[in-house]
Amino acid sequence: MAKRTGVWLIGARGGLATTVVAGTRVVVRGLAAPLGLTTAGPGFQHLDLVPLADLVFGGHEIRSGSLAESAAQIARDNGSIRSEWLPSIAGDLADVERRIRPGQAVNCGSAIEQLADPRGTLGGLGLRDLIARLAADLGEFRRAERLERVVVVNLASTEPPLSAGAEPATLADLSRLLDEDRRSAVRASLLYACAALHSGCAYVNFTPSNAALVPAVGELARERGLPFMGSDGKTGETLVKSALAPMFSHRALRVLSWEGYNMLGDRDGQVLAQKENLEAKVQSKDRALAQILGYRPHTRVGIDYVPSLNDLKTAWDFIHFEGFLGFRMSMQFTWQGCDSILAAPLVLDLVRLADLALRRGEVGPLPHLAVFFKSPHGVEEHDLHRQWQTLMEYVNACTK
Amino acid sequence: MAKRTGVWLIGARGGLATTVVAGTRVVVRGLAAPLGLTTAGPGFQHLDLVPLADLVFGGHEIRSGSLAESAAQIARDNGSIRSEWLPSIAGDLADVERRIRPGQAVNCGSAIEQLADPRGTLGGLGLRDLIARLAADLGEFRRAERLERVVVVNLASTEPPLSAGAEPATLADLSRLLDEDRRSAVRASLLYACAALHSGCAYVNFTPSNAALVPAVGELARERGLPFMGSDGKTGETLVKSALAPMFSHRALRVLSWEGYNMLGDRDGQVLAQKENLEAKVQSKDRALAQILGYRPHTRVGIDYVPSLNDLKTAWDFIHFEGFLGFRMSMQFTWQGCDSILAAPLVLDLVRLADLALRRGEVGPLPHLAVFFKSPHGVEEHDLHRQWQTLMEYVNACTK
Amino acid sequence: MAKRTGVWLIGARGGLATTVVAGTRVVVRGLAAPLGLTTAGPGFQHLDLVPLADLVFGGHEIRSGSLAESAAQIARDNGSIRSEWLPSIAGDLADVERRIRPGQAVNCGSAIEQLADPRGTLGGLGLRDLIARLAADLGEFRRAERLERVVVVNLASTEPPLSAGAEPATLADLSRLLDEDRRSAVRASLLYACAALHSGCAYVNFTPSNAALVPAVGELARERGLPFMGSDGKTGETLVKSALAPMFSHRALRVLSWEGYNMLGDRDGQVLAQKENLEAKVQSKDRALAQILGYRPHTRVGIDYVPSLNDLKTAWDFIHFEGFLGFRMSMQFTWQGCDSILAAPLVLDLVRLADLALRRGEVGPLPHLAVFFKSPHGVEEHDLHRQWQTLMEYVNACTK
Amino acid sequence: MAKRTGVWLIGARGGLATTVVAGTRVVVRGLAAPLGLTTAGPGFQHLDLVPLADLVFGGHEIRSGSLAESAAQIARDNGSIRSEWLPSIAGDLADVERRIRPGQAVNCGSAIEQLADPRGTLGGLGLRDLIARLAADLGEFRRAERLERVVVVNLASTEPPLSAGAEPATLADLSRLLDEDRRSAVRASLLYACAALHSGCAYVNFTPSNAALVPAVGELARERGLPFMGSDGKTGETLVKSALAPMFSHRALRVLSWEGYNMLGDRDGQVLAQKENLEAKVQSKDRALAQILGYRPHTRVGIDYVPSLNDLKTAWDFIHFEGFLGFRMSMQFTWQGCDSILAAPLVLDLVRLADLALRRGEVGPLPHLAVFFKSPHGVEEHDLHRQWQTLMEYVNACTK
Repeated sequence: MAKRTGVWLIGARGGLATTVVAGTRVVVRGLAAPLGLTTAGPGFQHLDLVPLADLVFGGHEIRSGSLAESAAQIARDNGSIRSEWLPSIAGDLADVERRIRPGQAVNCGSAIEQLADPRGTLGGLGLRDLIARLAADLGEFRRAERLERVVVVNLASTEPPLSAGAEPATLADLSRLLDEDRRSAVRASLLYACAALHSGCAYVNFTPSNAALVPAVGELARERGLPFMGSDGKTGETLVKSALAPMFSHRALRVLSWEGYNMLGDRDGQVLAQKENLEAKVQSKDRALAQILGYRPHTRVGIDYVPSLNDLKTAWDFIHFEGFLGFRMSMQFTWQGCDSILAAPLVLDLVRLADLALRRGEVGPLPHLAVFFKSPHGVEEHDLHRQWQTLMEYVNACTK
Repeated sequence: MAKRTGVWLIGARGGLATTVVAGTRVVVRGLAAPLGLTTAGPGFQHLDLVPLADLVFGGHEIRSGSLAESAAQIARDNGSIRSEWLPSIAGDLADVERRIRPGQAVNCGSAIEQLADPRGTLGGLGLRDLIARLAADLGEFRRAERLERVVVVNLASTEPPLSAGAEPATLADLSRLLDEDRRSAVRASLLYACAALHSGCAYVNFTPSNAALVPAVGELARERGLPFMGSDGKTGETLVKSALAPMFSHRALRVLSWEGYNMLGDRDGQVLAQKENLEAKVQSKDRALAQILGYRPHTRVGIDYVPSLNDLKTAWDFIHFEGFLGFRMSMQFTWQGCDSILAAPLVLDLVRLADLALRRGEVGPLPHLAVFFKSPHGVEEHDLHRQWQTLMEYVNACTK
Repeated sequence: MAKRTGVWLIGARGGLATTVVAGTRVVVRGLAAPLGLTTAGPGFQHLDLVPLADLVFGGHEIRSGSLAESAAQIARDNGSIRSEWLPSIAGDLADVERRIRPGQAVNCGSAIEQLADPRGTLGGLGLRDLIARLAADLGEFRRAERLERVVVVNLASTEPPLSAGAEPATLADLSRLLDEDRRSAVRASLLYACAALHSGCAYVNFTPSNAALVPAVGELARERGLPFMGSDGKTGETLVKSALAPMFSHRALRVLSWEGYNMLGDRDGQVLAQKENLEAKVQSKDRALAQILGYRPHTRVGIDYVPSLNDLKTAWDFIHFEGFLGFRMSMQFTWQGCDSILAAPLVLDLVRLADLALRRGEVGPLPHLAVFFKSPHGVEEHDLHRQWQTLMEYVNACTK
Repeated sequence: MAKRTGVWLIGARGGLATTVVAGTRVVVRGLAAPLGLTTAGPGFQHLDLVPLADLVFGGHEIRSGSLAESAAQIARDNGSIRSEWLPSIAGDLADVERRIRPGQAVNCGSAIEQLADPRGTLGGLGLRDLIARLAADLGEFRRAERLERVVVVNLASTEPPLSAGAEPATLADLSRLLDEDRRSAVRASLLYACAALHSGCAYVNFTPSNAALVPAVGELARERGLPFMGSDGKTGETLVKSALAPMFSHRALRVLSWEGYNMLGDRDGQVLAQKENLEAKVQSKDRALAQILGYRPHTRVGIDYVPSLNDLKTAWDFIHFEGFLGFRMSMQFTWQGCDSILAAPLVLDLVRLADLALRRGEVGPLPHLAVFFKSPHGVEEHDLHRQWQTLMEYVNACTK
């Protein structure tokens, strides 16, 4: 029991969190193979990662409902969680349900605030008290479940970006902000990050919300000797981009335009239909190309809300390029993936590798995890293959 | 003058050879930028590669016509060589035309034999004499143009594959074959390779024809202290495959089916419409996937002749894959490229790097050139990014 | 009870028949809306068609298994029949199961013969006796269920085509064939058609098997005063073709090439992977284009077996065309449909309209049903919209 | 000479007008076949339409430059007008160039105003005088070229839409507006339409600019006994939509979402990148679907400016639909067309049919031309095939 690792999910009843929790239990119970898990691959065998069976889940949530309802709806809408599995994992979901606590949505914009259930959302508290309350939830989780280590993963909806000037640059700035209770200068994700670090947890920012990893948070992590990483899990169109763009670069094919259109229909899509929330996502998705190619082609990153698709994200990318003698050619691809099915195993990979980092006493950002993120914190490299090589070098160093 | 390098093209009036010759002169004359050339990229600056302006072209051909006619037809059909460039390079093409000699098509199958012009094809000679005659052409080219080094590049149409058992395994076997004049046991490409090596040239097999690089040829190259490499330039669908497949592998997404349909309409397509010639190509294209993934998904490599497309090769690939919880998703891409525009700069890259290998005294296959080939001789690695890394390591070793 | 119509399905436990039977019951029980049914649309309201609730199913089958097993497998593989519906319709399926009789596969080729369960297949009978036995099954079905009218629908796997010369041209020819028991001159579908007409049923050939509607069968239908129609339900790629091709024609855009690639993974795909069976299908699919356009562009109709797709047929079509000033442009489409989901409502539409034809005393081929078929019997028109207009004119004539 | 018909193009040096003029002369001179012309098809032979050789071109323009420069640029950028044709038609273009007069851009928004060359744009005139001046240009054209009939075609860039309330509802309203010189209540296209009708010409509004066909213009046309039609030539994505949507309707497949993304890179694209100008276009493109289907699916019509594409418009449409048992399927298509190559023959078709209408004394809107327009004036029907049928009925009526 003592070796179990806690996984605290922010947005614990969302589609992705539900897929993480339900999926882990489905795999542990042998109902499905551990497909899609990088860390289940051959290179990771000697790394002594925490087994999926030893992960204990809890989390914060602002919406009403239950994991069981959420799982049933996914089964109905997508079939990505199969309805025949639901009876087998009903007890598991109920266990996790009991460990879900009311969250907060401070300054997250109206799209997110509309999702919140007032009864399930922390209100009436100053920022300092809010952080303390969130940290207390984490502490209780650790004690009650006798967990050695806890990894907090932010899976909440995308917040509007915090503009570069406004963010707290130092821990002192942050401290002042909190003292003055300046709610407009923070966002929910920043408060969660503070609580996680105050409570001795590793922190993984799986969303694009940039408030979570402002410089002050980095300083706090170093002060507390804790690892963190983010942002924005690389699951679909950007994953393909970061695999394909190096090919154009190696072959000296000049990309003129790379236009990407994404359509999705789940809660994420609904929140991103709000312009302010969309901005964070687009910034995160648009960075990779110029870095990999070494110049700026014409690009577009559209994200549109198409309700009928639910979680079945569909992206079409058109790449117009110039080769020998200036001749113009094109490539296009359509990616039809299930967002939560692609993201859930990444969450588990990140949890296992963050747990390893905690054990190894690693502090600050974890650059070897860049391969999992659209906007890897502190890492300039976006080439998927170079990122993969960095991860493999880390794995080799660990196993020597 | 003494520093110039000879480039001897087999299939010298074909669409690709014409694009190589005309394109080089267009770039040298400053009419177009050197796009599509890997070796014009930033990593290769300190390598002292032969400048395009110092390449002197000649070649063997079995078809009638002229480079000028071939270039005019390309301008008309595709526009990949622009008609406004033709006057500026007319003299250059005429110079090369004078260095084109009759080739041979021994045992190449009826699809290729139908292309041959009897007056421009070597006939009535035994195998030994044929090789001697081809080698004599190369020797004369070297002397007349005062070339220090010559690289022979096979750009001829795809031959039917030589079956594994029938091929000459040793130089002694080959010698016996030639003594006995057993024409059915060789193919044209093998004779060209022998002539090139006998004449002290490097040999690049840009086609899938596997007869060119049978073990006996490798032995001959080692005996003569010469470098060679092949086979089958990686220009389109397979290039994309080798860039994308590692992504599925890194993410542990299980590829169930990868179905590829290629359509092309040029002479290459016409020859490949013949079943026996197609076989070599498909074998070459189908290898990469299983190696990169580590298992064999259901695959298909269709190549169909669609005359209206001319050289504008269009490929559609459908990838069906399984992720977390066994959920099935798909990706599809359409590649619309101009075959000769994609291949010509690769030919130039290979010429420049083979020329460097000659200068450096490298002998036998050149594994660092694997990134340019669908079936890299003696190299198991098909992952484009690992192949690229190998090339970069070679470049770094050269420049130290 | 007296007003009920019998529907006799050949291939009664196949994927399509299962979807027809299970789907009808799902709709009748109000679990799903009658989507995809042309005859449920606004134009057909006054036609007094037989309600779905009044259809009674039975059929012939050569494979073992049960409708319930077949439905459960579809639920598992595709989800097109939802697993939560299975309990509600279990009794309905069991009722139909009791009305399934052993079929025959005379001269159907090895691909189909391998599917047959010897215990469930009629053997050891001469051709005349076989027909009599099949007709007896139909007669018993009619009596036992007290059915006024019966429509026989052929949903069996595609047979190899009967070559044009070999087919019985007249009823007399057919009679002689049967007398001489020349099994190699008939195919299973022809025997089923004879039995249906002998037994006073309407006959719908939903498969491409051309033996079913040889001239002798037409003569037999006229003699018996019965209606029939076929062949090959138009459900996917060909449907799109027949909707799109008129656009190119109206706009005088010259189609140069129309290349179609179909992938499917179900039993149909498995049978079509056999060259002789494929031939019938391709002939049926390739006819429409030349008729609509008025000239023959370069075409291809590929059908490939991709097991992982199951019933989720995926087709990619590439259309290369020439417009004003001879400028070349292209269109491509990907169709991702579920074959049985697209076909099942067509079967029901055809049953309802054939039942109407029986009531109205129509005799011979039913040209107004051309819109439902890839190879409409006796109809030259392939333009979907003109076919639709013909159907609407029939409907209007009926309701006047 | 007396039988020649005048064609007055508004936006006479634009890409489309250049393609119309140059293309007509290329076809007349026998350098290319009359592909893409509906009226060159078999159904129109007996209609006695004006031959292309008898069309005399002139027009209004606000930009500087020349037809010859415009044609040379198209040859360089797209190749849709081939550079080898330019010498043969240089004289023809120069003739037309002499008949181009300064236009106006009253209240067209900044995107269009930026294109205008002050020296080539009519300024300093009140609205009444402007119209008189434009009409005088037309009158002079008719006299100088001895034209029996003149058709004015608006090919100018898309204006911002005139909001429904603000438009002049009656001729009296319009008269008042002009008397009061209220420039903000009109747009350039309305002034051109008035001038055309005052001058006895037929008027074709090939752009989406809705100001051209306000009710007052209809009244004016009836008063003058002249025909007119519009708006917005149906050339690409909408054309495909109007051909495909009926298929979903006939098969009772419920369209859930139809998302269309258009990319183009020419001057049109640049103007449409302005939000106010885009609005008119999107309104025009989004209407067809709901009319054809009879309900409103989720739709999107994106138009993005991708400079590298020039005139090679690329559209990707994704159609998500529900079939039998509520099963969801999808279709997607990519349309890669050259906008001016698709539009130019339509302009010629409309000119020939409007000329016929003038001869036949038809007055007011011409509903049989709906098949050519995205927003056919006064016609509710958007089904391409029903529109085609209407045109064919007109043709038959004419030839009886």
